[in-house]
Amino acid sequence: MKKPLILVTNDDGIHAPGIRSLIGIVREFGHVVVVAPDKPQSGMSHAVTVASPIRYKMIHKEDGYAEYSCSGTPVDAVKLGEKVVLKARPDLVVSGINHGSNAGINILYSGTMAAANEAAMIGVPAIGFSLLDHSHNADFKPGESYIRKIISQVLQNGIPKYTCLNVNIPAVPADQIKGIKVCRMGKGYWDELLEERFDPGNKPYYWLAGSFVSIDAEEGTDEWALQNNFVSVVPIQLDMTAHSVINQLKDLENHV
Amino acid sequence: MKKPLILVTNDDGIHAPGIRSLIGIVREFGHVVVVAPDKPQSGMSHAVTVASPIRYKMIHKEDGYAEYSCSGTPVDAVKLGEKVVLKARPDLVVSGINHGSNAGINILYSGTMAAANEAAMIGVPAIGFSLLDHSHNADFKPGESYIRKIISQVLQNGIPKYTCLNVNIPAVPADQIKGIKVCRMGKGYWDELLEERFDPGNKPYYWLAGSFVSIDAEEGTDEWALQNNFVSVVPIQLDMTAHSVINQLKDLENHV
Repeated sequence: MKKPLILVTNDDGIHAPGIRSLIGIVREFGHVVVVAPDKPQSGMSHAVTVASPIRYKMIHKEDGYAEYSCSGTPVDAVKLGEKVVLKARPDLVVSGINHGSNAGINILYSGTMAAANEAAMIGVPAIGFSLLDHSHNADFKPGESYIRKIISQVLQNGIPKYTCLNVNIPAVPADQIKGIKVCRMGKGYWDELLEERFDPGNKPYYWLAGSFVSIDAEEGTDEWALQNNFVSVVPIQLDMTAHSVINQLKDLENHV
Repeated sequence: MKKPLILVTNDDGIHAPGIRSLIGIVREFGHVVVVAPDKPQSGMSHAVTVASPIRYKMIHKEDGYAEYSCSGTPVDAVKLGEKVVLKARPDLVVSGINHGSNAGINILYSGTMAAANEAAMIGVPAIGFSLLDHSHNADFKPGESYIRKIISQVLQNGIPKYTCLNVNIPAVPADQIKGIKVCRMGKGYWDELLEERFDPGNKPYYWLAGSFVSIDAEEGTDEWALQNNFVSVVPIQLDMTAHSVINQLKDLENHV
C-alpha cells in the first residue's frame, strides 16, 4: 500500500515542542512534510496574508521527511504547503499539538484549528490537536497514544468531506485519561479585562487578558469531556448558518 | 424611548468609504460610537492581538456621536469598544460596509464578520454588511435603503441570542436590486494560485491570489441570491459542530 502523504502545521511556530511531538507520531504513518510558521501565530484564527508576500525556507530534508518554515499565518502555511511545497494534495493535514485549549468557542480564535478548517475546505481530511497546557514545557506524552489512535482511524476510514476534527487533550497523567468522547462544541465567551498600563510618556496601552466564561458545559460538550479527563473529539463543519433561525427572519424579505 | 447605543467597526480601516456610508445610516437610529482599526485589516478573520498591546485614539466627539481609531484587529476593536471605550454593552454592533463579498465561506476569512461574531458571542445583536465591489470608489448608495430596513427590524425585533447576520449586497444600480433573501451559506473554496516572483537578490516570494470556486450555489444560498441581484441575509451561529457526524465517529471512543 502506498504510504499516505501527511502535511503538518501549527500556530505556535515550527520551534514549539508541541509540533515536535506530533511530527514524531505522524512519521510512523507515512511521508511527512512540515510547513509551519517561523514564529508564534497564536490567536491568528483564519487570517491570511494579503497585503504582503509570503516566503518559505527548507530546514531539513531526508527520504520520506521534509521540514519548511514559512512567514505568514497557519492558513497561509496550508495554502503554501499544498500549492508550492507539495504541488499535490496531501492525504491528511494535521495541526498542533497546540499549547493550550481550543475547546468550545476557542476554535474561532485558533490558528491551529483554522489550518485544519482550511484543509477541510479543499476536501482534505484534517485534524487539529491541542493540549490543555499553555506552558512551553507542557508534557505531550500522556496524549500520544490517543493521537496515534485517532490518526490511524482517520487514515483508515476517512472523515466526511468538508469536515475536520477538533481534538483536545486534558493535561493530566496518562493513567488519569479516561478515554475518548466524541462531542459537540461547548458554548462560552471570553470576559475581557483589557488591562490598562501607561508607557514612559504616560500614554495608555491595553493588553488583552480575561477569563473564559462557559455557558454550555453540559454532558455531550467538549468542555464537559475535558473537565472529566476525556480526550474530546468534535467534528467541525464550515457551514456557520443558523438554519433554525432562517424562518424566523423571513419578515426581512418584505421590503417596503 | 431611550435611543439605542450602536457600536460601529469594520476591517477596511476607519478611513474606508464603506464605514462612512454605514455611519451615516446608523446615526439616524441612535447614539453611535465608532471604534475601528487605524489601518486595513482585510483577511484578518477572528484574529486577536496577544503578543503586543493595543491602543486607541479619539478622532472626533460630539453629542450622541464619537469616533475612535485603534491598533489591532476588528475583533480587538469590538473588545476594546465594549470594555474600554463604552464601558457598557452596546445595543447593537454593526460592521462594514465591507469593500468586497463576504458571502459563503468567505465569512471564515473576514474581519468584518469576525467583529459581528465577537459581538454575538457576548450576546449583543450584530450585523456585518458587505458590498460585492472591492474598489475604493465602490458605490454604496444603492444598498443603503436595504441596510436601513435591516437595522430597523433588528432594533425592533432583535435576533436570537448568540447569532448575528451576514448581509451581502449586489453591486448593481438600485433599480436592479430585487429585494432581500434570507439564506443559508453557500459552499466553496479559494483555488489558490500563489503567484511566484523573485526579489532583486533572486530569492522567490509568493503572493496569495486565486479564484473562488463555488460548490453549492443552489437556490436558498447567499451565492444564488447575490447572483440573482437580491440582498442576501444569512443568520450565523457560533456552533461549528457537524452534529450529523457525531454518531458516525463513535467508533473512536473504543480506544484499545
